[in-house]
Amino acid sequence: MIGINEAKRMILENCDQVKVDWLPLINASSYVLAEAVYSPIDTPPFDQSAMDGYAFSYDQWDKNSKLLVTGEVQAGSFSDTKVHPNQAIRIFTGAPLPPGADTVVMQEKISIHENHITIKDEQLSKGSNVRLCGSQTKKNVMALPGNHFLTPASISFLAGIGVDKVKVYQNPDISIIVTGKELINADHKIGEGKVYESNSFALRAVLKQFNIEPVSVEMAEDNEKETINAINKQMTSDIVLLTGGVSVGDYDFVTTALEKCSVKKIFHKVRQKPGKPLYFGKKDHTLVFGLPGNPASALTCFYEYVSIAISNFIKRDIFRRQRIPLANEYVKKAGITYFMKGKVMDGEALILKHQESYKMNSFAEADCIIELEEDKEYFQKGDPVNILMI
Amino acid sequence: MIGINEAKRMILENCDQVKVDWLPLINASSYVLAEAVYSPIDTPPFDQSAMDGYAFSYDQWDKNSKLLVTGEVQAGSFSDTKVHPNQAIRIFTGAPLPPGADTVVMQEKISIHENHITIKDEQLSKGSNVRLCGSQTKKNVMALPGNHFLTPASISFLAGIGVDKVKVYQNPDISIIVTGKELINADHKIGEGKVYESNSFALRAVLKQFNIEPVSVEMAEDNEKETINAINKQMTSDIVLLTGGVSVGDYDFVTTALEKCSVKKIFHKVRQKPGKPLYFGKKDHTLVFGLPGNPASALTCFYEYVSIAISNFIKRDIFRRQRIPLANEYVKKAGITYFMKGKVMDGEALILKHQESYKMNSFAEADCIIELEEDKEYFQKGDPVNILMI
Repeated sequence: MIGINEAKRMILENCDQVKVDWLPLINASSYVLAEAVYSPIDTPPFDQSAMDGYAFSYDQWDKNSKLLVTGEVQAGSFSDTKVHPNQAIRIFTGAPLPPGADTVVMQEKISIHENHITIKDEQLSKGSNVRLCGSQTKKNVMALPGNHFLTPASISFLAGIGVDKVKVYQNPDISIIVTGKELINADHKIGEGKVYESNSFALRAVLKQFNIEPVSVEMAEDNEKETINAINKQMTSDIVLLTGGVSVGDYDFVTTALEKCSVKKIFHKVRQKPGKPLYFGKKDHTLVFGLPGNPASALTCFYEYVSIAISNFIKRDIFRRQRIPLANEYVKKAGITYFMKGKVMDGEALILKHQESYKMNSFAEADCIIELEEDKEYFQKGDPVNILMI
Repeated sequence: MIGINEAKRMILENCDQVKVDWLPLINASSYVLAEAVYSPIDTPPFDQSAMDGYAFSYDQWDKNSKLLVTGEVQAGSFSDTKVHPNQAIRIFTGAPLPPGADTVVMQEKISIHENHITIKDEQLSKGSNVRLCGSQTKKNVMALPGNHFLTPASISFLAGIGVDKVKVYQNPDISIIVTGKELINADHKIGEGKVYESNSFALRAVLKQFNIEPVSVEMAEDNEKETINAINKQMTSDIVLLTGGVSVGDYDFVTTALEKCSVKKIFHKVRQKPGKPLYFGKKDHTLVFGLPGNPASALTCFYEYVSIAISNFIKRDIFRRQRIPLANEYVKKAGITYFMKGKVMDGEALILKHQESYKMNSFAEADCIIELEEDKEYFQKGDPVNILMI
């Protein structure tokens, strides 16, 4: 059986595919650029007033004279009329400077009398209050590099330079196959021996955080034939997530079904709790995760392992990893990594009560998964631990 | 003119509305529960085996005898056959214990010979490897409290106890009205005096982080009449965001248009840079933000102010606030708060270059907004500052 770091390394080594495509800019927030974006235009596209005020030629103003206001230019319009020496033009924020003008005085810094303005601005210098053409971006110069994470500000920036689509790393197609004869849907009354199916809910909810809607969610009949059919049907997806049936019980069909579907096993079983029966395999480019059926184990394995494969597609981490002190002491077996439901309190990682893997109520309260490392047995308050914010 | 804290307080004071409604559980991830959820059933709904193994009655086993295996029960099925003294039944993880059995021995801890098992498990005690009925949740007992933030684990937990819908705080309806005669869409060629419209892109992108799709996005003609029409049309929304036209220039129609639409001004102008002309008003329950037209100012005001109103609806913060040391020194004017485009590097907040409010390229690189407080003029490396992670 392998340890968690080897398992993670093996997943990463087998992530050999990314998908790159154009997206309309408006849909591209939170994606990562697959290639650099070059500015299609100079921005500002013209010398632009940064203020409401008056535009004039600084050098041709004799500093003692009043300036005759000869016209007006609003944002969105333009003026062809040349501004002559000792003339000015009324101008508004965002408007282009008319020919001849190179400086804007703010409206708060003048007095006006019979169409003549007197400037009272000791700080004023040539070029004041003017945003020069191309001073934000220059045409054909890189605006954003490849691998840039598109925040709302990035989207705004690109919209402002006239970019309307971007090449980004695409989300993978993900299929979910839930197995387990004991599972029923919440709209059924619970019968003898049955429990409510919850893994598809957990996986759909966590995928939503990556803005991924699974291409398929199905419940396979709990026998080998139906499991094989379900797997074969989903092999066009980039990632197939199965839950349940990966232990070695007499009714655990998943691993044998995967073998019969020619999925190559990369690992099966990891020295960890929960999630020991975790399976990872591959067929062509399709990555296959066999997650344990236990809801807490399935979700923990998603956070710790499936997220690695998804991150490789979308080129970003969605869950933050940190190393912080432990808030309470804990004793565990050596030789196996424990993933504990935890909560960050005052900068420390608190191990919550009710860690039994079937108890989802403590997981529901958790805001992090605390990793208690394999080799260590006794954990003291204050010991540094790795956590994954969820 | 008011300061930023007074502005924030005035927004909060005027947030007097929340919307509560039922959502199907599968769509409820990242929402906050508006009321506690009570478990409809005991879970596990029966005494359940936690292992693949053999179920028997611990007290009726004489500890020396082998146990006769009389049958089998898989997960998803059940057995009515009573397990008699010195008998056992083959059982699988998740299956209900048959009548008479109270303990499960793991399959790894027995040897089997001609239908009789010999138990070799020194740790075994009465009730071992059994999840008792109701040991996770008890019927009609609170499963999750009101105001609980629904993580994927919470969704999984609720699905597992048979909850299929939840009452949550709903997203507000938000309308966006963009003003500015100089604005054109990216599918047009840029003409004299025109610039590409980007505020609607920024606002839609940032709202997407709250999973909010605006109910309406429109560009109003830049005159008072059309601005009034646009505002009146959107007054059924919970929040109306306008961009542009909130300064006091001759072509700034928005504040007068809002007045003519009977929107009550709560404040106009804040001692801050960027975003000085920020307007906030209210009509009936509709909150109205007049954001500056400058893209960096508009987005900064969204992060700092509009987010307060949205958070009050959805009962959670989406942007993390932190207080960390400044990475570089800075000198600013006293008497005004500066919001700087920043980046967290090695736990310190770095003020990025190119802070001019029209330069969106530095905002595109930023991962935080650094608040440089109003009264202070000189900021040294290491000074603690408030940041908002974006």
